Amino acid sequence: MKEGISLKKNINITVIGLGYVGLPTAISFYENGHKVFGVDISKKTIEKIKNGVNPLIDSEIDLEIPQSSDNWLVTDDYKEVIPLSDIIIITVPTPVDYQKKPDLSYIKTACEMVIKSMDKDKEIILILESTVYPGVTRDLVGGIFKKNDVFDKVTLAYCPERVSPGDSGKSTNSVARVLGCDDSSIGNELAELYSQITSKGCKYVGKLEVAEAAKLIENVQRDIDIAFINELAILMPKIGLDVMDVLDAAGTKWNFHSHKPGIGVGGHCIPVDPYYYIDIVKNKNMPSSISKRAREINEIMPFHAVNEMLRILEKSETRKILILGYSYKGNVGDTRETPVKIMIDELQKSNVSILLWDPLVPNSEMHENVKIIKDPYEENKIDLIVVCTDHKEILELDYKRLINNSNSKIIYDGRRCLDKMTIEKIGWQYTGIGTTNII
Amino acid sequence: MKEGISLKKNINITVIGLGYVGLPTAISFYENGHKVFGVDISKKTIEKIKNGVNPLIDSEIDLEIPQSSDNWLVTDDYKEVIPLSDIIIITVPTPVDYQKKPDLSYIKTACEMVIKSMDKDKEIILILESTVYPGVTRDLVGGIFKKNDVFDKVTLAYCPERVSPGDSGKSTNSVARVLGCDDSSIGNELAELYSQITSKGCKYVGKLEVAEAAKLIENVQRDIDIAFINELAILMPKIGLDVMDVLDAAGTKWNFHSHKPGIGVGGHCIPVDPYYYIDIVKNKNMPSSISKRAREINEIMPFHAVNEMLRILEKSETRKILILGYSYKGNVGDTRETPVKIMIDELQKSNVSILLWDPLVPNSEMHENVKIIKDPYEENKIDLIVVCTDHKEILELDYKRLINNSNSKIIYDGRRCLDKMTIEKIGWQYTGIGTTNII
Repeated sequence: MKEGISLKKNINITVIGLGYVGLPTAISFYENGHKVFGVDISKKTIEKIKNGVNPLIDSEIDLEIPQSSDNWLVTDDYKEVIPLSDIIIITVPTPVDYQKKPDLSYIKTACEMVIKSMDKDKEIILILESTVYPGVTRDLVGGIFKKNDVFDKVTLAYCPERVSPGDSGKSTNSVARVLGCDDSSIGNELAELYSQITSKGCKYVGKLEVAEAAKLIENVQRDIDIAFINELAILMPKIGLDVMDVLDAAGTKWNFHSHKPGIGVGGHCIPVDPYYYIDIVKNKNMPSSISKRAREINEIMPFHAVNEMLRILEKSETRKILILGYSYKGNVGDTRETPVKIMIDELQKSNVSILLWDPLVPNSEMHENVKIIKDPYEENKIDLIVVCTDHKEILELDYKRLINNSNSKIIYDGRRCLDKMTIEKIGWQYTGIGTTNII
Repeated sequence: MKEGISLKKNINITVIGLGYVGLPTAISFYENGHKVFGVDISKKTIEKIKNGVNPLIDSEIDLEIPQSSDNWLVTDDYKEVIPLSDIIIITVPTPVDYQKKPDLSYIKTACEMVIKSMDKDKEIILILESTVYPGVTRDLVGGIFKKNDVFDKVTLAYCPERVSPGDSGKSTNSVARVLGCDDSSIGNELAELYSQITSKGCKYVGKLEVAEAAKLIENVQRDIDIAFINELAILMPKIGLDVMDVLDAAGTKWNFHSHKPGIGVGGHCIPVDPYYYIDIVKNKNMPSSISKRAREINEIMPFHAVNEMLRILEKSETRKILILGYSYKGNVGDTRETPVKIMIDELQKSNVSILLWDPLVPNSEMHENVKIIKDPYEENKIDLIVVCTDHKEILELDYKRLINNSNSKIIYDGRRCLDKMTIEKIGWQYTGIGTTNII
């Protein structure tokens, strides 16, 4: 790409990884008149897309799958499309392993497959969208191309996805984007290209690491933000205050960031990215970081909640808990890094019998060692009901009906999403994260 | 106040402490048709107000001082007005001492003076506006009334001021307010009363401590926010990035909180309130707090800046520094807790000769042991120019003219408020907090 290609003329774009980021991105480029190829290793995903079926579990992503044509082709075979591609976008996952270390193997594999399949005489632009830490695009991705002696054929760019699952107006085509690229001329052209698929535009921000660092600090800041609220949820009851009263009051100030406290933070970004950040801080010999303390608090939240639940159950002869919600966030079925899993694991050390209901999570993704129920009203003699996710379906349950199934009539609101007064009027004892009335 | 008074009928309001919060508040109530008395211990302040002169140093507070009348009386004599008052508002300062412990003596004195002067047969409402920590209104203020056997005559309320000095639209009559009071009926009436003087309204939020805690956490959150940005300003250059590039990129995300990094945080709230908060965390046996780490970072900033400055000066035979700006914040003359003082103290340990210019700070408030200059262009052979406050007057200096007075032509931007490109075009070497190019 050293001589530059005009991005204005027709270009072939390949998207690798057709998940909740890649698939909408591919469709958006297609809808903007580009020739788009989609690659995914899952034959099942490819088959579904070919049949016009949305392969994404999360119902909230409403996609119109294009019909196969000259301008739209999906495949699990890199060789079929890579040689024809001008721009290759990698949107594969970057999960963390059990040690909270980033697993970059999907990116590695994708790059190696691209190199195996590429036309070695053709220049390409490779854009990484996966969440990584500063240096990964240059060192890891660039390194693989160097090792294979094709580094002179590739121009690297980094354009982090910023989708917020379940938040309307925060999908691939409605969030502002940033793009990093060492070649400012190509970087600006690519930003223009991306601006076609999002109403908020895409900004060229400088070299690769600027965009990588921006993505990282966005998530670290959010983790810190939530952690402070969670710290308050632990502290305020100790001085006799319900944290929600204080947050509601502070929330009237023009620059206060309101969040709800909760049993913990989940998802594939917020509980993960801070570890990359903390690693950098450590490697650069800085004594500590705000992020480290923030992580500690957010990680302690499920245990804090369990302590409160067990205190409530102390008076109870039986210990049957109904947990409402398993995904990490309201209105999505995503269970990645869900704190509910940690909460359940911890509860089970105390001889608790757990029933679990989540209308959005498929059984295959649910906690393995609990009783999954299909109907939240089906079980009775429940000693404690715990709300863990603020799905619409959970907020709209018939709590008048549910109370008949409860021994204790105690509800623990792990997300502070129920209206205390309404719930108490029905006859429940309301308690939860940050309340003063742990029974 | 146990039987309540109607706040709708004509009431006499006394404001104690006629500073940048009390005086505008008093005038606003007066302008809303109330009979208002103002009390201040400074005879000079009272004299100025009586003569229609604005006694506040900060030029940005534009006040129309009322003429003495039946409805407007200012005095340094509590006895003259307290017996006639229905509502007494205390807006005296609560600074911290050298150990960062809150100095509540002004509040104590005001309460004792009220009690000495009050008509013991008359019920009063006492509203505290000064920044305090949860419990002060009840324990300290209430305690003084109890000790003097007049507790049954007083209803306490807390209504924190939220003025942001120098920010247009963030003055007493344009910020939303909250009010705490154990008596919800009086609390609601008082909130209604305050709603008369601010366009954003006043909300009754519950008991005293809710409003106290809200005020506290607002400032603690802001300190944490800025600390994270300052942490990035130290970290990003270590990985080869200018922090402003990364912040500009992250700032395009809808929920990123943008702040500028700097040489430290000052003023009477942000560097002070976190210590109250950290104390509570400690007293409640919580292991640590995000706020503690945040404070450490914000406190290290002036020292970090000094290290960078000394590194720049290493190559220089002389060490003559011109410091532009002494107040803690742009466009205000307020020097309370200014980090520039700490910076200068530290620089002076290294045999540096310092010139200081701040067009908004009166000489009496300036650092004692430096050479104060009246004209920023008057001295030459300067080895380093350091921008410490982003006053309009500093941003609009003639940097083309200033460069002739500089030996090194190096400018250190301690607030990242100058435009790098413009400055470099003139011929300066631009560097500063969070840049990669410390010379």
